[in-house]
Amino acid sequence: MTGWMVMAALAAGGGTAAVGAPKADTAPAKDVRSPTEIVAAAPAGDWVTIAAEDMLVMDLAPDARGRARRVVIQLMPPPFSQGWVGNIRTLAAAHWWDGLSINRVQDNYVVQWGDAQGDDEVKAKPLPSALAALPLARYEAPREPGELSIDPNGFGDYTPSKPFLSIEIEESPYIFAGFYAGWPIGRTGSDQEMWPIHCYGMVGVGRGMPPDTGSGAELYAVIGHAPRHLDRNLAIVGRVIAGIEHLSSLPRGTGALGFYADPAERVPIVSVRLASELPPAQRPRHQYLSTESESFARYADARANRREPFFVQPAGGADICNMPVPVRPAP
Amino acid sequence: MTGWMVMAALAAGGGTAAVGAPKADTAPAKDVRSPTEIVAAAPAGDWVTIAAEDMLVMDLAPDARGRARRVVIQLMPPPFSQGWVGNIRTLAAAHWWDGLSINRVQDNYVVQWGDAQGDDEVKAKPLPSALAALPLARYEAPREPGELSIDPNGFGDYTPSKPFLSIEIEESPYIFAGFYAGWPIGRTGSDQEMWPIHCYGMVGVGRGMPPDTGSGAELYAVIGHAPRHLDRNLAIVGRVIAGIEHLSSLPRGTGALGFYADPAERVPIVSVRLASELPPAQRPRHQYLSTESESFARYADARANRREPFFVQPAGGADICNMPVPVRPAP
Repeated sequence: MTGWMVMAALAAGGGTAAVGAPKADTAPAKDVRSPTEIVAAAPAGDWVTIAAEDMLVMDLAPDARGRARRVVIQLMPPPFSQGWVGNIRTLAAAHWWDGLSINRVQDNYVVQWGDAQGDDEVKAKPLPSALAALPLARYEAPREPGELSIDPNGFGDYTPSKPFLSIEIEESPYIFAGFYAGWPIGRTGSDQEMWPIHCYGMVGVGRGMPPDTGSGAELYAVIGHAPRHLDRNLAIVGRVIAGIEHLSSLPRGTGALGFYADPAERVPIVSVRLASELPPAQRPRHQYLSTESESFARYADARANRREPFFVQPAGGADICNMPVPVRPAP
Repeated sequence: MTGWMVMAALAAGGGTAAVGAPKADTAPAKDVRSPTEIVAAAPAGDWVTIAAEDMLVMDLAPDARGRARRVVIQLMPPPFSQGWVGNIRTLAAAHWWDGLSINRVQDNYVVQWGDAQGDDEVKAKPLPSALAALPLARYEAPREPGELSIDPNGFGDYTPSKPFLSIEIEESPYIFAGFYAGWPIGRTGSDQEMWPIHCYGMVGVGRGMPPDTGSGAELYAVIGHAPRHLDRNLAIVGRVIAGIEHLSSLPRGTGALGFYADPAERVPIVSVRLASELPPAQRPRHQYLSTESESFARYADARANRREPFFVQPAGGADICNMPVPVRPAP
């Protein structure tokens, strides 16, 4: 119960140094390298290759100077959001997004794409009939002990063998946060539920009012400070792992909620495909740093305690969204 | 000591509902309005007009379609960073930034402007001789009881009479966070120090390696998830209160650290002036919502507990950087 102990120590003593740091009795000597240096030195075995069928490739129309704009999204693995992820696979296979557009860019919040006529029963593009209807139930996934071995004793521990890692990087008012199988995850203190977290670059499913949960046809990507109030209120289905700048640098919409007021401002989507549908030579190839690796534990610790000479005062902790999981082109 | 008590309750019980919420015994009935509705209904007396001498007006060259790009920055008030703020006033009065440029745009991090030749002793633009040299000392401000009445009993309290407000919106691993005189502020548990926080839109002073602290000539604005590791490591001197989209939507630089690889990509700065130097008709006029007002307390609570019908599960807490201080054009 290291996590709780660390919090109790803070509540009792108010110290600034101990919280957020790994346990002294299990951690190796402090790593004075920068996060970038630690990632660059990670052994090949610490990297996980992302399967082609788990990447969505969105090609936007070229920019005003004629440059290509490709956005690559890694889809969320089980046990999270798989109903919507399945629909997204169906929509991509149907080439449903081809010819649609990015319709909303709200500063410090989200970019959203899909059918600009989505609310118009006559003009809206028909959806594939094979989409699953997803009732309002749980945006969380239940903890299944045989499947997700979350070990509270792992909190604060460098031991890289656990699938759920947290080094007490965030003490959110309502949850613990950590990493599971390469993703930032929140969970309740009682360990009964867990859910993906809205960090920069995360991709989620737009929807109307509850009990609507969205089909997956309307998607958004986070382009600002983590909107954590969306956690458990919308389905996170992936994250942008390449080309986020083609979304984050778009002109902001001037209509309500950042929708483009003038249809001419919309950014055309040429195509959206699963990478596995592309000819092999055209497939993106990416790897992420295993969040169960010792390299990741050291990286996370270095993000929380910047020891490079530039820093006067290491923070001693970091928000989970300020520890983006490293992604690189596959060598 | 409400703040500590709230944390202790979490550590002991792990409940999800109580933390981040105002104290039941002092709070009025829950406000079911949205944050936007609360701000819109705030009485005139809850708004503070920003003095013209406390706003920096940066006019960039028009964009590719000929549209004007004006960025307005509110300068940081005492007791924070006043040495650098004084230098910035001197630099603006000297029209020092006129003809310089935005040179760096790093995705999910910062936009930086100043003299692109700043490291070249021959080509660099001379600085005004009146600039103060600022030694490496404290990026924090000491708590001065006669001046800053931080009252720990104010934590979690709706009472709007205290200059420092925190509703336990964040339990960062190393600090408490709250609002002081309109700004997001961190402080240690021992109440001895306080400092501004790097949230979206905050403006800071670029520098080299310590003990260099920068003069204020090289400035950056945050355009991504709050880089809290910069807190207490760089001087925050203000925040963008209008026109952030003219910075955040710029093309990302492809050089190291997001610097523009091609000098032609730099964005020309036409002029930087204190608003008080502009003809009265051209001055921007803005107000911020007093962080000591009851309206702000309700707004902050509503940001932490979204009660609109869209939300399935209110978070019960929010990061301080997800509670941007509302700013509006002066009516």
